[in-house]
Amino acid sequence: MFRFEILHRSKISRARVGRIHTRHGVIDTPNFVAVGTNGTIKGLDNETVDAIGLQLMFCNTYHLLLQPGTDVVQKAGGLHRFINRKMPIITDSGGFQVFSLAYGSVADELKSRGAKKGEGHVLKINEEGVLFRSYRDGSKVLLTPESSITAQKALGADIIIPFDELPPYHIDESRLRSSLERTHRWEKRSLEEHLKSPQGQAIYAVVHGGIDSEMRRQSCRFLADLPFDGYAIGGSVGKNKEEMGAMLKDCVPRLPEEKPNHLLGIGDIPSLDALVPLGIDTFDSSYPTRAARHGLLMTQSGGIKAEKGEFKDFFGPIEEGCSCLTCKNFSLAYLHHLFKARELTAYTLATVHNLTFMVEKMRKMREAIALSQI
Amino acid sequence: MFRFEILHRSKISRARVGRIHTRHGVIDTPNFVAVGTNGTIKGLDNETVDAIGLQLMFCNTYHLLLQPGTDVVQKAGGLHRFINRKMPIITDSGGFQVFSLAYGSVADELKSRGAKKGEGHVLKINEEGVLFRSYRDGSKVLLTPESSITAQKALGADIIIPFDELPPYHIDESRLRSSLERTHRWEKRSLEEHLKSPQGQAIYAVVHGGIDSEMRRQSCRFLADLPFDGYAIGGSVGKNKEEMGAMLKDCVPRLPEEKPNHLLGIGDIPSLDALVPLGIDTFDSSYPTRAARHGLLMTQSGGIKAEKGEFKDFFGPIEEGCSCLTCKNFSLAYLHHLFKARELTAYTLATVHNLTFMVEKMRKMREAIALSQI
Repeated sequence: MFRFEILHRSKISRARVGRIHTRHGVIDTPNFVAVGTNGTIKGLDNETVDAIGLQLMFCNTYHLLLQPGTDVVQKAGGLHRFINRKMPIITDSGGFQVFSLAYGSVADELKSRGAKKGEGHVLKINEEGVLFRSYRDGSKVLLTPESSITAQKALGADIIIPFDELPPYHIDESRLRSSLERTHRWEKRSLEEHLKSPQGQAIYAVVHGGIDSEMRRQSCRFLADLPFDGYAIGGSVGKNKEEMGAMLKDCVPRLPEEKPNHLLGIGDIPSLDALVPLGIDTFDSSYPTRAARHGLLMTQSGGIKAEKGEFKDFFGPIEEGCSCLTCKNFSLAYLHHLFKARELTAYTLATVHNLTFMVEKMRKMREAIALSQI
Repeated sequence: MFRFEILHRSKISRARVGRIHTRHGVIDTPNFVAVGTNGTIKGLDNETVDAIGLQLMFCNTYHLLLQPGTDVVQKAGGLHRFINRKMPIITDSGGFQVFSLAYGSVADELKSRGAKKGEGHVLKINEEGVLFRSYRDGSKVLLTPESSITAQKALGADIIIPFDELPPYHIDESRLRSSLERTHRWEKRSLEEHLKSPQGQAIYAVVHGGIDSEMRRQSCRFLADLPFDGYAIGGSVGKNKEEMGAMLKDCVPRLPEEKPNHLLGIGDIPSLDALVPLGIDTFDSSYPTRAARHGLLMTQSGGIKAEKGEFKDFFGPIEEGCSCLTCKNFSLAYLHHLFKARELTAYTLATVHNLTFMVEKMRKMREAIALSQI
């Protein structure tokens, strides 16, 4: 069922246009993957998300495991039916969240801002997995490679991700090495659990190794030898865009070329522009939807702040020529007003615009790759 | 342009089926009027509101005067164009809000819960009008019968309301009488200001007199003699449903029968069931939309609480047979989950349902009146 085809290769870069086939339809690549943590893009119902044409949605196993519980989703007939989504879904393993509990915000760590903050609600980390306390009911939950895959089978996403360890950014080489080795063992266990009953799901490995190029290469080699369906790049990708670019430039060519790859947690416009030419196929990020809720509206020229005084009486759309429901029906002045008045409708209308912007941006990038302009 | 026709009269009550014609189309009566204070039903864009079939939307002049300002709305070409609403709009005078500032929450006062709380941000109340301080920029704003009408002309709603004084519930007879007399003078000034340039707008009087039946009758007499296009019933309507019912039973027959009437701020289901037979044509209330945001979903059998444990794995719709977008696409279990996860989408989906419920409820009431079942 799961299949990746490459339609065009750029003559000037490693960028490629492809098509991932899943049980719930096609994902054109390169593409942007919006984050719907709890089974919804914040502020949008899934009928609207389908209409926008978002081909892949990222849901978080950790959140869904605790609320509503994978048993409920399974009883509903899987995540697609539960949330009424017709197009493909990818779930993560829950690793990112439980290690955020353990080390403080992983996002801070990845960006080298944070210091280790103690154990949070994590009770135990050992070779088996991670034992933590549910923030919902205080019960103890054990997340292991096997239980993460079982949860992701119950959710039934089209693409799933093996359980991995997220080491903090500030870590010495020997600890990074042991973390990498454990991650590899956990990913192998995840893969084995998955292969017992693939159910038409694809599983993407997660390449680790932080910003140590030797370990990244080792991770690529180890995982490329295993029958994963695709390759995600995770862990600390560097403290700035230069570090990230250098790492990916070295890493991507070491992954199986005929398989799709994914960059975890990155999706801002400058990164997309810089990284699509390196051959990345899909990118997930909560940036465009979170930005929308803060009144940051994406435009060709870099974006505008809805609440800026000059838009008070600007009765044109956010961007001339934009085909989104917001731009077709409402003025920037009205959006400005809704944000000023702190109306929920503001968040919805801005999210519709930013998500449409991303879908359209990626469509144009695919066109440009086919013409070898990227 | 503005015209009211009565299509059916019930044989068993004063209930009637009618049709209010406005520049922006028809309002079938009796009908429910949803509140979109800032020019939006909270959580819904106006395209969706149109699709639900809500024929009249209530916007608040006080709020729109301060944000975005009537100058902005006028520059946009009026409120309909500014908020992209195709169907009729009614605005109030701002009186309710400025007297809430003066006396504490008018809602509390009307329900006889509150005590007088001092002057709030109101700086002066005299025969001219009310001077208050804007919560947005601290500037002084003078609201008078004339300035309220001027603001409502700039907004351009289909139905507007004269500036009135909202006396607190706890008030002695002589103070209620002077308040009533001032309100009558203010309403007459409002009407005169309106008639200078009607612009196809209709103006509804507001009947006052609290729960003093003699003063209510006096108010009906005074206002019925003036060329208003319709009659709203406002002020303290009683501290319980019995008081309200008794007052309306006495009051409604004293209003011009051939003109539409409106009950301000009441729209819960038991009140609709009790008051439509008394001949009320339209009701506005924020109840169904506010209830939705609190997870109270309206049903034939009185409503349910979305977060109740039993709905965790109830995969049917909120109500079988409901034609709303929420019920057609999403299960109650999913709504339960979205409320538990505090997702914005929950508020939108619940509001779509409750508003559709109200539209449908009123359609059925009109049918029942035509059959003299109400």
